[in-house]
Amino acid sequence: MTAVDTVEIIRAKRDGHRLTDDQITWFIDNYARGGVIADEQAAALAMAIFFRGMQSDELATWTRAMVDSGSRLDLSGVGRPTVDKHSTGGVGDKITLPLAPLVAACGVAVPQLSGRGLGHTGGTLDKLESIPGWRAALSNDEMMRQLEEVGAVICAAGDGLAPADKKLYALRDVTGTVEAIPLIASSIMSKKIAEGTGTLVLDVKVGTGAFMKDLERARELAETMVALGKDADVRTTALLTDMSTPLGLTAGNAVEVAESVEVLAGGGPADVVELTVALAREMLAGAGRDDVDPADKLADGSAMDVWKAMIRAQDGDPDAELPTAKESHVVTAPSTGVLTRLDAMAVGMAAWRLGAGRARKEDPVQAGAGVVWHARPGDEVTEGQPLMTLLTDEPERFERALASLEGGYDVEPAGSAYEPGPILLDRIS
Amino acid sequence: MTAVDTVEIIRAKRDGHRLTDDQITWFIDNYARGGVIADEQAAALAMAIFFRGMQSDELATWTRAMVDSGSRLDLSGVGRPTVDKHSTGGVGDKITLPLAPLVAACGVAVPQLSGRGLGHTGGTLDKLESIPGWRAALSNDEMMRQLEEVGAVICAAGDGLAPADKKLYALRDVTGTVEAIPLIASSIMSKKIAEGTGTLVLDVKVGTGAFMKDLERARELAETMVALGKDADVRTTALLTDMSTPLGLTAGNAVEVAESVEVLAGGGPADVVELTVALAREMLAGAGRDDVDPADKLADGSAMDVWKAMIRAQDGDPDAELPTAKESHVVTAPSTGVLTRLDAMAVGMAAWRLGAGRARKEDPVQAGAGVVWHARPGDEVTEGQPLMTLLTDEPERFERALASLEGGYDVEPAGSAYEPGPILLDRIS
Repeated sequence: MTAVDTVEIIRAKRDGHRLTDDQITWFIDNYARGGVIADEQAAALAMAIFFRGMQSDELATWTRAMVDSGSRLDLSGVGRPTVDKHSTGGVGDKITLPLAPLVAACGVAVPQLSGRGLGHTGGTLDKLESIPGWRAALSNDEMMRQLEEVGAVICAAGDGLAPADKKLYALRDVTGTVEAIPLIASSIMSKKIAEGTGTLVLDVKVGTGAFMKDLERARELAETMVALGKDADVRTTALLTDMSTPLGLTAGNAVEVAESVEVLAGGGPADVVELTVALAREMLAGAGRDDVDPADKLADGSAMDVWKAMIRAQDGDPDAELPTAKESHVVTAPSTGVLTRLDAMAVGMAAWRLGAGRARKEDPVQAGAGVVWHARPGDEVTEGQPLMTLLTDEPERFERALASLEGGYDVEPAGSAYEPGPILLDRIS
Repeated sequence: MTAVDTVEIIRAKRDGHRLTDDQITWFIDNYARGGVIADEQAAALAMAIFFRGMQSDELATWTRAMVDSGSRLDLSGVGRPTVDKHSTGGVGDKITLPLAPLVAACGVAVPQLSGRGLGHTGGTLDKLESIPGWRAALSNDEMMRQLEEVGAVICAAGDGLAPADKKLYALRDVTGTVEAIPLIASSIMSKKIAEGTGTLVLDVKVGTGAFMKDLERARELAETMVALGKDADVRTTALLTDMSTPLGLTAGNAVEVAESVEVLAGGGPADVVELTVALAREMLAGAGRDDVDPADKLADGSAMDVWKAMIRAQDGDPDAELPTAKESHVVTAPSTGVLTRLDAMAVGMAAWRLGAGRARKEDPVQAGAGVVWHARPGDEVTEGQPLMTLLTDEPERFERALASLEGGYDVEPAGSAYEPGPILLDRIS
């Protein structure tokens, strides 16, 4: 094929046709390598995919081509089943932190290779980087050794994994083409397939604080990703979980690490524990180890032992004090009654505006910034009691953070009906 | 606004919203100037417009912004009404060549500023360049002087007219976003409005050899352009004309000039004469000169006088011999009967493959290349008689040209029903 075919490929998708396997592999291969396909052509194709979608086998070819644009790790030398989890991202979603050591404590290996997101709060790597000394970048050898010796590793994904996705994601970010299910699914799955995990559990978030606002779209994304995983011989299942209310009691970086450590110590907020254990069971089932109950490993301290070993292996000090924000601002309950709603998007935006997340990839995040809330939906509150504490190093950020929280929570008279919704909404396998 | 707004603009259009006037002017202005808006962002917006369209007032703002990206000529000093014609392009469409001098002979001024197209055959400038000495590039002063002295000028549009369109058209060409009615309409109309003509007649082609294959889409394009013209105070009407059969008996460059000169001499194929006179009447009506009958000016030789003056004013020799192709190949009638169909697209592709048109903007065209046909639909033919002559300097081109013509014409038994369709299909005002 020649460069002239690029326009033919764009027009074919634009007009609703299935791209041929040759067209797809040629396009992805050449876009990743650079030279033949211009960014404006890839952008036009991405927008056409936004409108036209992709058939399932077409998307499988697309995803395979993304994987083939780089190297695929071989984790067969680890000697244990490998299991990873990927969350589509939510507010207060620190689950990876207690989950990876917990599942490793149950006897399987957890390779958790992460990118740096543009989320409301920092990504998993940003959270862990609030631990003094901890480093995200590992060589392949270091990663493999840690996986064998500790059983869990959370580190930065190398540039060699799905480089086509790296280029395409940066393009989608500036061209308004992020929100297309085939492109989201292939982006996530190409990286996870390239990572080499044998089993993958997807946590697809649904609700105001999630990328997917409604269950139907979330289910479509989950089904699409599960199919792509299976196509690539990765045992893949997905849980659809609620993200209308933020998880736990914290959103930020260091504050989420602290909450994760509470969970590993056998405490922590009930919803974080419930979701951590549910995901652990799903991962263990995928790895053929449903004989082990992860709840036991939280109770007996073995998950905490793996956590400490995992942090130490990456030069972090698990016993060091975590950084705290220089400034805080307390939001009090406006009346006495029941907290009936705490909106995940409002809390997420506030945390982001306090400095816990980033607007551009090159922005820094504040380790101590974030939001801590002192009541969860269903809790009784008294007028004037602390409802939330906002944390930042830069007090000029409070005003916009408070604006984000406006209308983001409801306190209704005592005795008002409050029906807690489930965290686990559905399972796709 | 800042660069961040670019993504917001793309997303707004993608999600079906009307862009605000500020968004449109900011986008077009910055894209034309370069620096803030990347090509990939403009491509994504163009594809979103392909799918979502634009509201009429939204498109009017978009078109005004394109005009405002450059200068708008002031032709008020010409002292006569100014009238231009624009054709959306068809096979054998040499109408501009006899039309401009004909209308000028009727007492109005015809400023015909053309770009170089990527058509099946060359554009109007390519055709005229087959006349020895003729030059397309004129300064503004030369153009104005010729308009006053000769009354008609066909020349290359300067870079200063609608530069946003120039950049956007080049982008659309490589991103599969040419075929969007709002983008086609604003591209054509921004250049014609910037050119400064008082009246504009659009010849919107419909059929296999045209950009618009069906009447409905052609009508939509015509109505969109007429509305944009009126919005910019240009008296604009459109004729929808047939392009399922090629016009006249020639498609190419020098061969079309020769046919045009026949028309100016009072002869020429009936369909070319009919369309030329119909467009001339439409132009004269727009300029308030419907008291003059253009047919008289063909008959009395005054149109030919203007033609010669027009060619001479641009250093061409109207009496010089035209270049001829080095090689020819005759296609004979496969049987005896009636020629019931001659497909415009097939003939256009053949002419293009013989070297009369270009694939890329920088390609040269052959002055002598093209197709001459010796029968028109409805004509009786005898087996073995010459049906078409293919012309090129490069005989290796014959094979692919002949392949283009395969299935492109039908000869049916003598007495077969043949119902000629009209050339003029509709008028939009």
